Amino acid sequence: MSEPLQPGAVIGILGGGQLGRMLSMAAARLGLRCHVFEPGANPPAAQVADRLTTAGYDDHAALRDFAASVDVITYEFENIPTDALDLLEKLRPIRPGREALRVSQDRLTEKTFLRDLGLATAPYADVTDAASLQRAIDAIGRPAILKTRRFGYDGKGQVRLDPDSDPAAALADMAGAPAVLEGFVRFDREISVIAARGLTGEVACFDPGENVHKDGILHTTTVPAQLRPGLRSDAILLAARILGALDYVGVMGVELFVTDAGLVVNEIAPRVHNSGHWTQNGCVVDQFEQHIRAVAGWPLGNGARHADVVMENLIGDDMDRVADLARDPDVALHLYGKTETRPGRKMGHANRVIHR
Amino acid sequence: MSEPLQPGAVIGILGGGQLGRMLSMAAARLGLRCHVFEPGANPPAAQVADRLTTAGYDDHAALRDFAASVDVITYEFENIPTDALDLLEKLRPIRPGREALRVSQDRLTEKTFLRDLGLATAPYADVTDAASLQRAIDAIGRPAILKTRRFGYDGKGQVRLDPDSDPAAALADMAGAPAVLEGFVRFDREISVIAARGLTGEVACFDPGENVHKDGILHTTTVPAQLRPGLRSDAILLAARILGALDYVGVMGVELFVTDAGLVVNEIAPRVHNSGHWTQNGCVVDQFEQHIRAVAGWPLGNGARHADVVMENLIGDDMDRVADLARDPDVALHLYGKTETRPGRKMGHANRVIHR
Repeated sequence: MSEPLQPGAVIGILGGGQLGRMLSMAAARLGLRCHVFEPGANPPAAQVADRLTTAGYDDHAALRDFAASVDVITYEFENIPTDALDLLEKLRPIRPGREALRVSQDRLTEKTFLRDLGLATAPYADVTDAASLQRAIDAIGRPAILKTRRFGYDGKGQVRLDPDSDPAAALADMAGAPAVLEGFVRFDREISVIAARGLTGEVACFDPGENVHKDGILHTTTVPAQLRPGLRSDAILLAARILGALDYVGVMGVELFVTDAGLVVNEIAPRVHNSGHWTQNGCVVDQFEQHIRAVAGWPLGNGARHADVVMENLIGDDMDRVADLARDPDVALHLYGKTETRPGRKMGHANRVIHR
Repeated sequence: MSEPLQPGAVIGILGGGQLGRMLSMAAARLGLRCHVFEPGANPPAAQVADRLTTAGYDDHAALRDFAASVDVITYEFENIPTDALDLLEKLRPIRPGREALRVSQDRLTEKTFLRDLGLATAPYADVTDAASLQRAIDAIGRPAILKTRRFGYDGKGQVRLDPDSDPAAALADMAGAPAVLEGFVRFDREISVIAARGLTGEVACFDPGENVHKDGILHTTTVPAQLRPGLRSDAILLAARILGALDYVGVMGVELFVTDAGLVVNEIAPRVHNSGHWTQNGCVVDQFEQHIRAVAGWPLGNGARHADVVMENLIGDDMDRVADLARDPDVALHLYGKTETRPGRKMGHANRVIHR
């Protein structure tokens, strides 16, 4: 299927969180319907999607019905069980494609892919047992971070190894899962490039944003990022190279460290990305619409930046500040419709916009 | 109820067309849910609303269930049957309130209200039969337009009376409905002010836009409107006076003629308005979010204009141009998810955006 989707066509979205929610709203803006597949109850995306299937990724009948009801399938998270993908891809196009998922679902595969492309990454080594962990520590040194190869996000499945840490305890934290030891990179700042590639191969990148994390979770993204001359285009070319190598369709978040020696790839996410939320108030076409356009086989839109933006995540008790933020004339609020506030839970974000 | 709605609260929307659809999406952005009440099948708003009731306005049980499930009620059109409003207002706040509906549901009442406020309107006269029609013609002259007092929109329920027209035939077109004869106003241009008033009485207006109609339907709105000095603030003050007089809560569309003698009020619409769609790409907070903020008891948002915009309605076969519009880097597309294209049917709109 390579024809653009017509208005009224249905996009299937795996995952019903805030990313699926904002993808649904962008699709609706283009006259497309969304069918969300989500195992959990009361997913935020269901409030704005045309249809919801509540079922597990092991429910093959539900997956088949879901596929039959949609024209194309996309997703809001990369850790979709492989069996479900195997079933779905026989029935409908999955965009971004399987190769992007295969690479990004596994930290070791991802790092190897990036190195093979000639890109710089943090030093890393495969860890499967105490012996390989010791070899990894010898090669990389400490401090370093031991991470599960799969299913990590927002700092989960990670443990820091300091010179005085007990490697055995760190390994035990992995609960037997294959892991990778990553060395630290001395960096000035972290930036993201939100890059998009259309079905016909055209690439468009949003202006790089500068990220600040707090407690292992993204806290703010600021555009424009402070970058010395040349690095802005380096970042964009590097992202384009990754998308091209994967024959990618959709939006990808590429996190980069800015170092004295140039850019180092931290990680890639084959989906819309928290660090791209600023585009909702900084561009005519935001990352969500850009992703939908790509997935629907439409031409990519104009992602040129027309404002300076600071995106701040609203996490847990930050919701107590909503009344104040709603009164702030420079702030565009985006809340996710989650009924229960929990510490560490992403409840919304605020884009502070300065038109120049 | 004067406390601001909390995230997760439910806004009931009477009417499931494109205005209800865009209201739902704006509410979702603020973490609010929408329940749409609509008699017709497959309403565009249902694709993005949390909940839909399909029932007629004479279905009192359905209206009661609807009211019980929401925190506040608003609407996307002014011609809601009075019986339904009588029932609903006993159960939940209706915003904008009944007075705005009473005034705007009837062209004669509306014109009288505006005149009583000291505002200029077209010459008008009450028409109930052949004798009163003749008196109206004698007073106003011809050409003039005979309009039903109630239930008119987009040029429906209207007939033009030229010097050689047969008054009896025009009266027959009214099918016995009370009517009003309106004289023509010599005007340079038509503009709209999209004005908002919050629950605590604060008023905010978007920059006036200039409207061009085609076949009796809005074709384009352009901001900024070409206005001689002073008229921009006149327009805004006039709109604020109307909102204040009605103790209004929400967004109102105020259509004005620009004449040599100043501004003449064409009509008011107690809801978000087609001529305010440009705000989606010209302001941080658009007319839909502004309406939701007011209705929810939130502070009004920042509607300052940061771009020049030409909004063009996509009507009927204009949908054939969607592929071209999607490729245009200056265009933001907004489609309504209507499955069937019909001549004269509003299918979407395109905002052509120029950032200065």
